[in-house]
Amino acid sequence: MQFSPLIEQFMEALRCLPGVGPRSAQRMALHLLERDREGGRRLAQILQEALDQVGHCRRCRTLTEEPECRICRSSKRNEHMLCVVETPADMLALEQTGIYDGHYFVLLGHLSPIEGIGPEDLGLDDLLSRVQDGAIEEVILATNPTAEGETTAHYVHELLRPLGIRVTRLAHGVPLGGELEYVDGGTLSRALVGRGQFD
Amino acid sequence: MQFSPLIEQFMEALRCLPGVGPRSAQRMALHLLERDREGGRRLAQILQEALDQVGHCRRCRTLTEEPECRICRSSKRNEHMLCVVETPADMLALEQTGIYDGHYFVLLGHLSPIEGIGPEDLGLDDLLSRVQDGAIEEVILATNPTAEGETTAHYVHELLRPLGIRVTRLAHGVPLGGELEYVDGGTLSRALVGRGQFD
Ligand SMILES: [Zn+2]
Ligand SMILES: [Zn+2]
Repeated sequence: MQFSPLIEQFMEALRCLPGVGPRSAQRMALHLLERDREGGRRLAQILQEALDQVGHCRRCRTLTEEPECRICRSSKRNEHMLCVVETPADMLALEQTGIYDGHYFVLLGHLSPIEGIGPEDLGLDDLLSRVQDGAIEEVILATNPTAEGETTAHYVHELLRPLGIRVTRLAHGVPLGGELEYVDGGTLSRALVGRGQFD
Repeated sequence: MQFSPLIEQFMEALRCLPGVGPRSAQRMALHLLERDREGGRRLAQILQEALDQVGHCRRCRTLTEEPECRICRSSKRNEHMLCVVETPADMLALEQTGIYDGHYFVLLGHLSPIEGIGPEDLGLDDLLSRVQDGAIEEVILATNPTAEGETTAHYVHELLRPLGIRVTRLAHGVPLGGELEYVDGGTLSRALVGRGQFD
């Protein structure tokens, strides 16, 4: 026995959400149907609106329903700094530090020959034009510290090299609040090589 | 900084799903927008359809988009047995043991003065008529082994007592304090086989 066809389809459709297996999908579907139809209706409507209206900022490529995102529209940001990240979530994480006031460029991914993701998918032409045309003096490469992220950073670095502007990356090292014994060897090596004066 | 207004609303709307906090909601929203718009569209459509079409079986009250559920329509089920459960998920859990072939009645909750849930909310009038009118010879009270479930079982037992039919309960073996839908099939099977007189 299963649930009725429509309920089974509903549970199956919920599986498109990351981290949702058969068990959670069942719990979610029954919760909405038994106890929160109001919340379910609101979700259905907003989900539809978001899919219809959310596209990408024409300047930085982050997700937004507006032609240009808030940061790109702001007159208070430092126009000489551009930070290159893989995803909108990475952009948010950097914004939440509160110490960066420049602009962003969102690749929406990383180079990956296996997944068939090449330079054209990451908007690198747009990135190049932007750096060529604009007032940008420094590009911070803040891709993920993974093999694909590093490869992508190196590729972008090569792309920008002829322009002669400053290209930097996030510092590598031991994360704050971690225990040294659980930090992986590669990170520890980088932290040792990049050690600074104790002050 | 936050995401754009529509994306923030989308994340907020996802919080209606059980077990989804701010962090998962962000991950889900960005995943759908960045990587699975197809899945998102399907979910929006099915969610809407499910909310519009899924109601309750007119005989057993389980969730279904059909007037009567598959079990109630079946001519192969034992018409002399009726199993009373709290939720559609409990009904599925019992079905999956494969050893019960009677009918069900789904209370869609349990008695709870605190939450303002009384006998009328659990369809107990319908249950009484059904047992009075039908060919039912035994009612198995399979409410959850919780305080509310036990209270509900006792109430139903009192309600059915004047009819003089056999009223049983699941055998011990169902762990106390747990929720029926999470009990493993083997334990449930033993509890069904070992069911005893309700007292
Ligand atoms: Zn932007
Ligand atoms: Zn039914």
